Amino acid sequence: MKVGGKDFRTVWMEGSRVFMIEQNLLPFIFKVIELKSYLDTCYAIKTMITRGAGAIGASAGFAMAQAYLQYGQDEKEILKAKQSIKSTRPTARNLFYAVDEVYKAGKTSVEAAVKRALEIADKDAADSREIGKVGSELIKDGYNVVTHCNAGWLAFVDYGTALSPVYTAREQGKKVFVYVNETRPRSQGARLTAWELHNEAIDFRIIPDNATASLMAQGKIDIMIVGADRVAANGDVANKIGTLEKAVAAREFGVPFYVAAPTSTIDFECCSGDLINIEERDEEEVLYQEGPDEEGVMRKIRVAAPGARALNIAFDVTPAKYISGIITEKGILKPSDLS
Amino acid sequence: MKVGGKDFRTVWMEGSRVFMIEQNLLPFIFKVIELKSYLDTCYAIKTMITRGAGAIGASAGFAMAQAYLQYGQDEKEILKAKQSIKSTRPTARNLFYAVDEVYKAGKTSVEAAVKRALEIADKDAADSREIGKVGSELIKDGYNVVTHCNAGWLAFVDYGTALSPVYTAREQGKKVFVYVNETRPRSQGARLTAWELHNEAIDFRIIPDNATASLMAQGKIDIMIVGADRVAANGDVANKIGTLEKAVAAREFGVPFYVAAPTSTIDFECCSGDLINIEERDEEEVLYQEGPDEEGVMRKIRVAAPGARALNIAFDVTPAKYISGIITEKGILKPSDLS
Repeated sequence: MKVGGKDFRTVWMEGSRVFMIEQNLLPFIFKVIELKSYLDTCYAIKTMITRGAGAIGASAGFAMAQAYLQYGQDEKEILKAKQSIKSTRPTARNLFYAVDEVYKAGKTSVEAAVKRALEIADKDAADSREIGKVGSELIKDGYNVVTHCNAGWLAFVDYGTALSPVYTAREQGKKVFVYVNETRPRSQGARLTAWELHNEAIDFRIIPDNATASLMAQGKIDIMIVGADRVAANGDVANKIGTLEKAVAAREFGVPFYVAAPTSTIDFECCSGDLINIEERDEEEVLYQEGPDEEGVMRKIRVAAPGARALNIAFDVTPAKYISGIITEKGILKPSDLS
Repeated sequence: MKVGGKDFRTVWMEGSRVFMIEQNLLPFIFKVIELKSYLDTCYAIKTMITRGAGAIGASAGFAMAQAYLQYGQDEKEILKAKQSIKSTRPTARNLFYAVDEVYKAGKTSVEAAVKRALEIADKDAADSREIGKVGSELIKDGYNVVTHCNAGWLAFVDYGTALSPVYTAREQGKKVFVYVNETRPRSQGARLTAWELHNEAIDFRIIPDNATASLMAQGKIDIMIVGADRVAANGDVANKIGTLEKAVAAREFGVPFYVAAPTSTIDFECCSGDLINIEERDEEEVLYQEGPDEEGVMRKIRVAAPGARALNIAFDVTPAKYISGIITEKGILKPSDLS
């Protein structure tokens, strides 16, 4: 996607160097950082300089390729690097896949490892692009779309999943308006999705997460599209907390509810959403907020009563019955098609 | 209710002076302010030093009584005061009722005006207390309750509505746990309800608004109780944004959904919720947040992407069909009973 008239991916590799958009500084500062060694790249994944399944996978593949470029086929060093990269984020499936693939390719040659890492990143971007084309058929001219969290290009190498159909629809000349769920507690909607849409000059408004059902009841929303962290074999979808609540409201008020995700997100070994382990994160994410004050100085403030504690469940599971379809690079699947 | 071992109401009158808990400083500072003239009290209502239907009504009645104490039965001054008080907050129904009642009583004597103002405040507290008794029957020992926004004692003269049954159940020796919806954008849950429950040593956790349906789906919530800004004659309820979304989820997952409100909240002249005008508030409430930084200095920070705009609908309407019952001082009414 373009930023300031220039093409960017979330993460890319040039020679032995990896470049990333520093997402911890977004939406307030746009900065690209350079990572010279696989350890630098590990650190960037661990500290969430990059985040989102697709972007993490590509970054991990690049890190593995960097290790080959640094150490050649020295098996001892390579295995050590492989271990380090895999331990950056324990739950991202794409990460393990990318590392294993690049590791395997490196058995042939260092060049093959680099080539495989680039292929993985390109495939992620191509799948997202295809999801945009497939999903854009659901968006008619003048549609009001609502989305939750950030499943835009910042979460992938390029284009994204839930937002990709919006970008494609706009390219096709359709008028599209997006309601952006703020997505508390980490506010990826208000921060990242809003940043993306503002950057693309697509008309949107941030809404508190509380407002989605009310807008649906008033007939102001034509379609809801969200991303997915994991799709179970029975079509249940694990995604950012709040997705279930919106899906229930969508069905109640007759709003089509779509999940956009590459087929690599489907976990055929997980037969039901009930089996997906749901991460509970630090309560500080609910009790505190960060952002710039009026002078642009970053501040962390408490937004809850002193002494109060919070419960911070990061994801929820939306049963297949609430999902109109899953937009993949291979077409729109019915959740029931998966099995 | 007690704060620091001492009994407090949200607002009260001693001689010609009105006292109020300064709610703009909560939950970070607990302070009582003294208002010496009716104009001081008008200013306090206008600047939301006090807020919530019941507390506003009582304050307005006190302001009218203060005017009589200041000017005696000087009709010119009294009418001027009446006008000023009524113009503080345009939508609070209790305000107009209280001002008219105290004005009428003052035609007999200044003492009668003061007496009527005190009666109105006492009636508000007594109704809330009664709502607690009626509603506590719905709360069994060991129940997990979820609430939205703040309909606790801070919104009334004492006890509150949605939280009053929780307080009463605890007095009855029942173990009660409360999930507190944060209630973006103004975070009355995280700030005021959490402050009240922490003060009462009732076990609770703040949850992001996005988490309610997920907890309901997991069977972790036994009952939901919310307040109401207005109840239409057909049983539809206008309340804080997000109430509708939670009510839909509650029905979907079989969680009883109750509204707690004094019968004075029922507007028999409004035949359906569709007719209730929904306030749209300043988008800054969504885009910025205020709170103390690590050194305790109050800061206002931006929590959304630069340049992004927000839509801030303050209330929504929950159709009667989602409501299990309305807890009033006269008993639990079925929404269909109203007509």
